[in-house]
Amino acid sequence: MSSQFGEIVKVTVFGQSHGRAIGVVIDGLPAGEVIDYNELMAFMARRAPGRNKLTTSRREADVPELISGVIERDGSIVTCGSPLCAVIYNTDARPGDYNRDGGFSRTPRPSHADYTARVKWGGAADMSGSGHFSGRLTAPLTAAGAVAAQILARRGIYAGAQLLSVGKAQGSRFPLCPTRDDFVATASREIPTYDEGAVDSMRAEIKAAAAECDSVGGVIECAVIGMPAGVGEPMFYGVENMLSRALFGIPALTGVQFGSGFDGAASRGSKNNDPFIIRDGAVATETNNSGGIQGGITNGMPIVFRASIKPTPSIAQPQRTVDMDTMTETELKITGRHDPCAALRAVPVVEAVASLVMLDLLTIANKI
Amino acid sequence: MSSQFGEIVKVTVFGQSHGRAIGVVIDGLPAGEVIDYNELMAFMARRAPGRNKLTTSRREADVPELISGVIERDGSIVTCGSPLCAVIYNTDARPGDYNRDGGFSRTPRPSHADYTARVKWGGAADMSGSGHFSGRLTAPLTAAGAVAAQILARRGIYAGAQLLSVGKAQGSRFPLCPTRDDFVATASREIPTYDEGAVDSMRAEIKAAAAECDSVGGVIECAVIGMPAGVGEPMFYGVENMLSRALFGIPALTGVQFGSGFDGAASRGSKNNDPFIIRDGAVATETNNSGGIQGGITNGMPIVFRASIKPTPSIAQPQRTVDMDTMTETELKITGRHDPCAALRAVPVVEAVASLVMLDLLTIANKI
Amino acid sequence: MSSQFGEIVKVTVFGQSHGRAIGVVIDGLPAGEVIDYNELMAFMARRAPGRNKLTTSRREADVPELISGVIERDGSIVTCGSPLCAVIYNTDARPGDYNRDGGFSRTPRPSHADYTARVKWGGAADMSGSGHFSGRLTAPLTAAGAVAAQILARRGIYAGAQLLSVGKAQGSRFPLCPTRDDFVATASREIPTYDEGAVDSMRAEIKAAAAECDSVGGVIECAVIGMPAGVGEPMFYGVENMLSRALFGIPALTGVQFGSGFDGAASRGSKNNDPFIIRDGAVATETNNSGGIQGGITNGMPIVFRASIKPTPSIAQPQRTVDMDTMTETELKITGRHDPCAALRAVPVVEAVASLVMLDLLTIANKI
Amino acid sequence: MSSQFGEIVKVTVFGQSHGRAIGVVIDGLPAGEVIDYNELMAFMARRAPGRNKLTTSRREADVPELISGVIERDGSIVTCGSPLCAVIYNTDARPGDYNRDGGFSRTPRPSHADYTARVKWGGAADMSGSGHFSGRLTAPLTAAGAVAAQILARRGIYAGAQLLSVGKAQGSRFPLCPTRDDFVATASREIPTYDEGAVDSMRAEIKAAAAECDSVGGVIECAVIGMPAGVGEPMFYGVENMLSRALFGIPALTGVQFGSGFDGAASRGSKNNDPFIIRDGAVATETNNSGGIQGGITNGMPIVFRASIKPTPSIAQPQRTVDMDTMTETELKITGRHDPCAALRAVPVVEAVASLVMLDLLTIANKI
Repeated sequence: MSSQFGEIVKVTVFGQSHGRAIGVVIDGLPAGEVIDYNELMAFMARRAPGRNKLTTSRREADVPELISGVIERDGSIVTCGSPLCAVIYNTDARPGDYNRDGGFSRTPRPSHADYTARVKWGGAADMSGSGHFSGRLTAPLTAAGAVAAQILARRGIYAGAQLLSVGKAQGSRFPLCPTRDDFVATASREIPTYDEGAVDSMRAEIKAAAAECDSVGGVIECAVIGMPAGVGEPMFYGVENMLSRALFGIPALTGVQFGSGFDGAASRGSKNNDPFIIRDGAVATETNNSGGIQGGITNGMPIVFRASIKPTPSIAQPQRTVDMDTMTETELKITGRHDPCAALRAVPVVEAVASLVMLDLLTIANKI
Repeated sequence: MSSQFGEIVKVTVFGQSHGRAIGVVIDGLPAGEVIDYNELMAFMARRAPGRNKLTTSRREADVPELISGVIERDGSIVTCGSPLCAVIYNTDARPGDYNRDGGFSRTPRPSHADYTARVKWGGAADMSGSGHFSGRLTAPLTAAGAVAAQILARRGIYAGAQLLSVGKAQGSRFPLCPTRDDFVATASREIPTYDEGAVDSMRAEIKAAAAECDSVGGVIECAVIGMPAGVGEPMFYGVENMLSRALFGIPALTGVQFGSGFDGAASRGSKNNDPFIIRDGAVATETNNSGGIQGGITNGMPIVFRASIKPTPSIAQPQRTVDMDTMTETELKITGRHDPCAALRAVPVVEAVASLVMLDLLTIANKI
Repeated sequence: MSSQFGEIVKVTVFGQSHGRAIGVVIDGLPAGEVIDYNELMAFMARRAPGRNKLTTSRREADVPELISGVIERDGSIVTCGSPLCAVIYNTDARPGDYNRDGGFSRTPRPSHADYTARVKWGGAADMSGSGHFSGRLTAPLTAAGAVAAQILARRGIYAGAQLLSVGKAQGSRFPLCPTRDDFVATASREIPTYDEGAVDSMRAEIKAAAAECDSVGGVIECAVIGMPAGVGEPMFYGVENMLSRALFGIPALTGVQFGSGFDGAASRGSKNNDPFIIRDGAVATETNNSGGIQGGITNGMPIVFRASIKPTPSIAQPQRTVDMDTMTETELKITGRHDPCAALRAVPVVEAVASLVMLDLLTIANKI
Repeated sequence: MSSQFGEIVKVTVFGQSHGRAIGVVIDGLPAGEVIDYNELMAFMARRAPGRNKLTTSRREADVPELISGVIERDGSIVTCGSPLCAVIYNTDARPGDYNRDGGFSRTPRPSHADYTARVKWGGAADMSGSGHFSGRLTAPLTAAGAVAAQILARRGIYAGAQLLSVGKAQGSRFPLCPTRDDFVATASREIPTYDEGAVDSMRAEIKAAAAECDSVGGVIECAVIGMPAGVGEPMFYGVENMLSRALFGIPALTGVQFGSGFDGAASRGSKNNDPFIIRDGAVATETNNSGGIQGGITNGMPIVFRASIKPTPSIAQPQRTVDMDTMTETELKITGRHDPCAALRAVPVVEAVASLVMLDLLTIANKI
């Protein structure tokens, strides 16, 4: 395993779904940054299950304890320059119960990591509740991102993500220059999509999938506003390189495209190029098909990307699999309750990862 | 700049389009590997301009000299365990002529790195012919990939890429389990697309764009066959993380999706999941919507991904831009000859990068 | 801060002396390794204060909780391939009391990090009890090393360290080929020195320093036996590079020399060279002035190095310093009780770091 | 092999002694820095053999060609932000002659890397003239350091090294606060030692060793002046960690100690601590036993360290070794001419590495 990313701001994620705890260490944070714990918890709450009837019914308090890297000063929690460790204890951890899901090592769940983990670590992996591969691991990632987001906000930089589509239900993309208010409004909806009119069709897609013991995928759009131009190190430490490498750490995330991305690939240069213009006395681009990035470096426009989230692989329908002991084909029925749409709760996680990567890129570029 | 990627097999790219040379250092190659220089040159030729009338007329011999990391033994060139450096001298380098393109620092070309480079390095960047941002830098990357490909081939591992679409012209995806012959046949076509029947429409798209002083984008599909299961380190050193981080180093590449990717996000779990089956006595999956990867780890199926390449931003039509000295809007006309479809020549580059990343992942996983 | 080292086996240390907890994450451990917790605690005990009257009287239980990376199987704690996090809660943490030592930001203690931390982080650093710079941070490092040592022992590899000298009291170096028994005997002594006859003079040096409100330095020798030949990556990932980089993370450690080191530099080649011989049917060297390393690569002989530990800078005598607020010279008196000889408790820490680096090097070289 | 070091300023060394070329890539240099080529060559000349009768008679022009990373502006060579590659072609390369030294793979030279390279790479390594392990590889390292030194000098930062001792001949350490003039005077001597009075005895030591077909070791002291306080990232990216890791890449270097180092370990805290004082209106320390570093961070005093260089292992006397084919002990006689004192020419190499590490540390700390 190598559950780390970042060059100067280095993020290390640890924990298993049914182990004692999950958590994160952030090394390289600037010192002297106040952490508003209520705001951090509000950010965490956006990812928490059980917000509405569209997510799993499993409840975890998900209260990150900041056990290092901070100091109390005048009643505030302040970063002190040493690595920040946030621990979330698994309140419902059932360590003796590991065979429950461990059986999936014998009859691996389709499109889960059961089979690949078995090949890689033999029987040694802790795959209870998917272990370190569980979507639960995005909780510490979200906590870390919440800290980064607060530091960025102090510099006028905001990441905002939305559910752009769920299955066939399509919302609208963010406007050319989204505002912080757009992000706040989006996050406040039952389904965090920018286009309020799309909430109903999205909800319907999720409910329909759930009703059929099925799951559904989605696309998340994320924009980062306020980033200064000149950030990002080409060729392999550019904005796209750093973001994509970190984003693919989110379970179920299968694709990343910047700006016009795959649509742009079906287009012409005359249409896809972003003309430079003067806007409010400053250089800007008229369109943003480049997603705010040229040559790996920010150009001052919003950084915009979309990520695809596959349908939750755990579904209640019977599925075909293989019995690894007998090497025969068999059928598998997964019980328990799972998110019918992993994309829904992944929205703040994408925001969190984007914030962490931005903070790292800014630090490398000496702009923090 | 940070023009390096790789953990154990580390690749460092250097050079500017109109500097003295461009090149690459590969550190961490296994020792004792024969390099077939003719095969390497044949691989390079697939990327070379001027293969047909669809690419730029600029000619560069692009002969990589292996100045370190190899030794001659019994008439063969063999890796010796120390870093391999391949240098390609720019035979048409016009170092005194840097102002030619340098003028783009004043009136930046839309969707090029002129503006961001100016913001980042002021006037210090060498942007002649786009400098280090030039597509020419993919020549050493291709040379490095050719070396990696030979090492992989010796272990029965092959990467093959194809042009899946050009503008609106669409080809067919590789079959579930493509063969090496499929790759060879694809590479031998005038346009390297798997579906021979798509060649005409793709050629027409490119010619139409060129005729209108325009350019057109495309999508590249790549498959890697022969990879053993169990390779890849989650969460942030998985196959997708490592591949995407390296791929975004290719100029004009704007998106990466694995397996069903964005299509899968519009789908249901019951359809997107890959049932495990027994095929030829071994565990396999019936479909490959996971692109051969589960939890960041290879599952033994072909690794499959698609990458979007934007239309070449250099087009001969007049474009709107800004005069940085006067801060007024103006018009720009780019002369010279450019590839009307950057995706065409990027096909072997994607293959090259995939080979390098596979070699690194195999080395990390102790499977070389 | 960047409190991480290691390439494949990556160690991240966190915590402050008077924060809530200190701890460590080890990413990249092999899976399926049993951790004997009693043995781990026995290893920790060797570093613990209060073992005898020669160390600080401050007591910390120092019980590392393994909150991730392990699974219970058949009553054993077993590594599961995901990052292992060990947390040690500070039972005597007095978070409200930070001003106690924080005053040292105004009148910095000579040869402590008070001044440099103030310059680097302004008032934001948590320097209570030296914060992240405290010798207490070697507790999690020792826990991590204990885990590594158990994994190595299973492969017949053992690191053993000893106090070679304390002030002017000199012990004997390990023999050419020390055995595990030598290490066990050494560790069992009141003062962990190989030469039992040196214990009295060393104890006397420490007591004399303490009696005079002073401290005394020491030299630690470490040997690693059982390492196969061929491990280590030149030029900058060789055994010496990796070891020294990690060792200098131990507070108060000021120098590292391999084999004959500085003595060898005063010598002749004819004397310093290690003739190759056949010993027990295998290639060996007659002497080991190379410290088991040639060209950065292990040669199969014991890896031998010495490290210098400066006298504990905290002494009870009045010392000259500067008042940073008034920028005038002043005098400082440090109260509290400190180890009169930091080298004493650093012995197992050096062993721990050596074990972690060996495990990383073996993993890189594909020998685990 | 992993011949790279540095975090933001990354240095990659390549080449073999009798390959086509040796060279270096520096990634992450600041842009817009003028490189005075004559000054660079003057720096290289300090390392070149044949300066006097105390070094090997092998002559190499050692002219580094800057093939990337620079641009000519107004007659000056200026860094342009992209990776700088410097290549030195081996003018006397005899690639067909590799068996000459290759024989050492069968009868390995004592204290050389012949044996360890054979174990690691089998017969695949290019060990002709020691291949990548050769002292010749310090030529590109020196070129890279010369570039770094010029960038540092522009900020008032200078590294200076001297031969502190040769065998038993001892010179004096640099004064508490050495000046640039001290460095210039030292470098100008026949033997680059600070204490002019020590030149004769050092020369005598070297000549005596050479006369007896032997070699002799030495100690190099290095000081860096002008470094601002607050540079260095604890715990594992501090000044000592970064310097030692890079320094051990210099062949024959066996130990590194900072400030009082091993002497300090034999001392008392009351003597070894550096009292803070006001000097010229600024905070300073009265002594510098800390070598300018506290807690891994610079304190504004000169950074001072000493490195031990072992006697050149190639000596003309017969030596005992093993015949690897027959596994019997035998005798070996090394012909050819070698430096009787490797430490002599290593002086500018240590300076070069120190300059590169300082540049990296300053860049990380955002002070460039």
